[in-house]
Amino acid sequence: MPVNLNAPDSAALFAVPGVEIGCAMAGVRKAMRRDLTVFTLAQGSAVAGVFTSNRFCAAPVQLCRAHLGSDAAPRAILINTGNANAGTGQDGLDRARATCEALAALLGCSPAQVLPFSTGVIMESLPADRIIAGLPAALADCAPNHWAQAAEAIMTTDTLPKAASRQVQIGGRKVTITGISKGAGMIRPNMATMLGFVATDAVVAPALLHALVTHAADESFNRITIDGDTSTNDSFVLVATQQAGHAPITQFDTGDGALLRDAVVAVARQLAQAIVRDGEGATKFITVRIDGGRDEAECKQVAYAIAHSPLVKTAFFASDPNLGRILAAVGYAGIADLDQTTIDLFLDDVHVALHGGRHPGYREEDGQRVMKQSEITVRVDLHRGPASSTVWTCDLSYDYVKINADYRS
Amino acid sequence: MPVNLNAPDSAALFAVPGVEIGCAMAGVRKAMRRDLTVFTLAQGSAVAGVFTSNRFCAAPVQLCRAHLGSDAAPRAILINTGNANAGTGQDGLDRARATCEALAALLGCSPAQVLPFSTGVIMESLPADRIIAGLPAALADCAPNHWAQAAEAIMTTDTLPKAASRQVQIGGRKVTITGISKGAGMIRPNMATMLGFVATDAVVAPALLHALVTHAADESFNRITIDGDTSTNDSFVLVATQQAGHAPITQFDTGDGALLRDAVVAVARQLAQAIVRDGEGATKFITVRIDGGRDEAECKQVAYAIAHSPLVKTAFFASDPNLGRILAAVGYAGIADLDQTTIDLFLDDVHVALHGGRHPGYREEDGQRVMKQSEITVRVDLHRGPASSTVWTCDLSYDYVKINADYRS
Repeated sequence: MPVNLNAPDSAALFAVPGVEIGCAMAGVRKAMRRDLTVFTLAQGSAVAGVFTSNRFCAAPVQLCRAHLGSDAAPRAILINTGNANAGTGQDGLDRARATCEALAALLGCSPAQVLPFSTGVIMESLPADRIIAGLPAALADCAPNHWAQAAEAIMTTDTLPKAASRQVQIGGRKVTITGISKGAGMIRPNMATMLGFVATDAVVAPALLHALVTHAADESFNRITIDGDTSTNDSFVLVATQQAGHAPITQFDTGDGALLRDAVVAVARQLAQAIVRDGEGATKFITVRIDGGRDEAECKQVAYAIAHSPLVKTAFFASDPNLGRILAAVGYAGIADLDQTTIDLFLDDVHVALHGGRHPGYREEDGQRVMKQSEITVRVDLHRGPASSTVWTCDLSYDYVKINADYRS
Repeated sequence: MPVNLNAPDSAALFAVPGVEIGCAMAGVRKAMRRDLTVFTLAQGSAVAGVFTSNRFCAAPVQLCRAHLGSDAAPRAILINTGNANAGTGQDGLDRARATCEALAALLGCSPAQVLPFSTGVIMESLPADRIIAGLPAALADCAPNHWAQAAEAIMTTDTLPKAASRQVQIGGRKVTITGISKGAGMIRPNMATMLGFVATDAVVAPALLHALVTHAADESFNRITIDGDTSTNDSFVLVATQQAGHAPITQFDTGDGALLRDAVVAVARQLAQAIVRDGEGATKFITVRIDGGRDEAECKQVAYAIAHSPLVKTAFFASDPNLGRILAAVGYAGIADLDQTTIDLFLDDVHVALHGGRHPGYREEDGQRVMKQSEITVRVDLHRGPASSTVWTCDLSYDYVKINADYRS
């Protein structure tokens, strides 16, 4: 049951000039569902991406990195659900390459101009033949307004499709940013993977685009966690079709550059938070904010210790203000010189712990009131510096175990 | 339901000359249960301990470290269950100190000669008055053969008491090593904490004893994990009463020293594994062994990534040979230059993955057969060096969520 998340309204997803999307039923794992998605990108488009840090990264991730690192200008994105093509060795690379070659032949471009993505079961052989057979139907389906359909076609065990869209004015021109994502768990084990695709018609030099996608990931997908597992296939790509007709963006710090940056971050953040809201078994959406750290890295370290703790997460599920668990997680986050006597803990507006001990004015019923909400902010003040950081997570419920224990059977 | 664990047979727990143990009902949290335990140690005993790395360590841990670091020779161990005295600030320290002072007055020693331990609810005030009132009854109960009773008195939500005992011959003398532990979760949140107490009558210089307890912890308590949370109160202490009458042990590398070391490790390991077998909601006991690492540290890093992964743990619960989850955990363990194409994965005797991909001879029914067992060994060979490491863990079940979500209510 997703937390305050609705299926996207197709009419509110603006088309991005230069991008067309088509889907088809290829029977990758199940019959009669759209499991194959192709994005075609207008000539002159630039693409940048960030990928999983998992050393067991999947074949399509390896290939996608190589294609983006080559001189070839990307012309298409090819996504299948149902099979992650991970843990598949050389054979997996060969099969991913074969799908890129087939799409390139249909489009009249080189295979390096196709970026492949896969999500689904790990350690099973990719049915490249069925994917290749489905490509003509996907191309025939291509249209600018198929974002909602694609959001559904890339789902694995997500319970709802995830999409977001914005428009901003840059140099008197309307610029569109639209994206889709899928997730469910940070790794969706069998059905692995967080994927995010965002496209804009903004005019941005390819070199700058990489800085923008990295910044947007740091402010969105890199701040969420369901269960701490990192998928073999996690990928987030940003396409800029360069068709909006404004003067090229040359930096992201001020003016039009900052405007575009903020809009891309907003779309990426909405897509990332939607993944948490639809987290496996999630019943609550938790914001963990750490203030008063020496630097952002240590704030993030503490935030993730809290966000990953199964004990903290089960307490949220139970609406139990068992807040010693949060202090304990702060304590083992790995900050060697942490002084427990400077630490404050807040649950929304309730001041729970002062100087590392129970706040004298704290009443259990106040904690209880906040814990019953479906959206909760945990704030810890370390009082040792000026830095802050925020991450988003969900609770750990019976259903998390049920989903992950039962999934394959 | 503990995994292949039985309550200790009191007759098989050998008394340790120089140690007497008494328990009492102090009503710390619940009436009519033994919740207070005192060990008295003969004059001349040496004690060494290892404690939680959690920076939010509890008041008794802070005090215990200070007392062990002073010149005072320990004469007593004081343990209460029901309240962890953690997250309690200066008031918690004052209360822990008051209990040490009261026991010291009864024994005619200094407060620094008393080592305090607490386990139970976090962030609630220690009822020091009730503990102090219970001390005379605990002392009156003191006897050498109360190990089984103490194993029960230190329990929180453990379902079974945990004890182990061995005897070895050193220099023609019988030397005894007996110990008890409690755990349930690595942190038992409210009811926090892993505690281990082992005593021997061996003759070991105090300075050497610290090396022995550190080694024993590294081979036992530091190799187990239930949920990755580290308690504010985790403690493991080793007492040597020096009464066995053999020539003093001066090293642990060979001969009698190695004999003693191995016996202490065996007792500590049995106590540590018992904690995993009685892990919250555990239905399976999992050994994770990593071979072929460059050093032991990186092997342990990979082993813990597997042992902490909620996805791996739910797959074990479901008896689902969903082994890509294990490869994914290897991949995100944090070894930056890991080459996935050298990795082998075994499930007991079944060769699952070869060169980072599915082994051509692997059949799902073979994986399934092993996954159905109550004791399973996962072995990963990294093929990049000579080092190995092993950790023990359990699966993640509905009952883990149930226990941790329902506990306080």
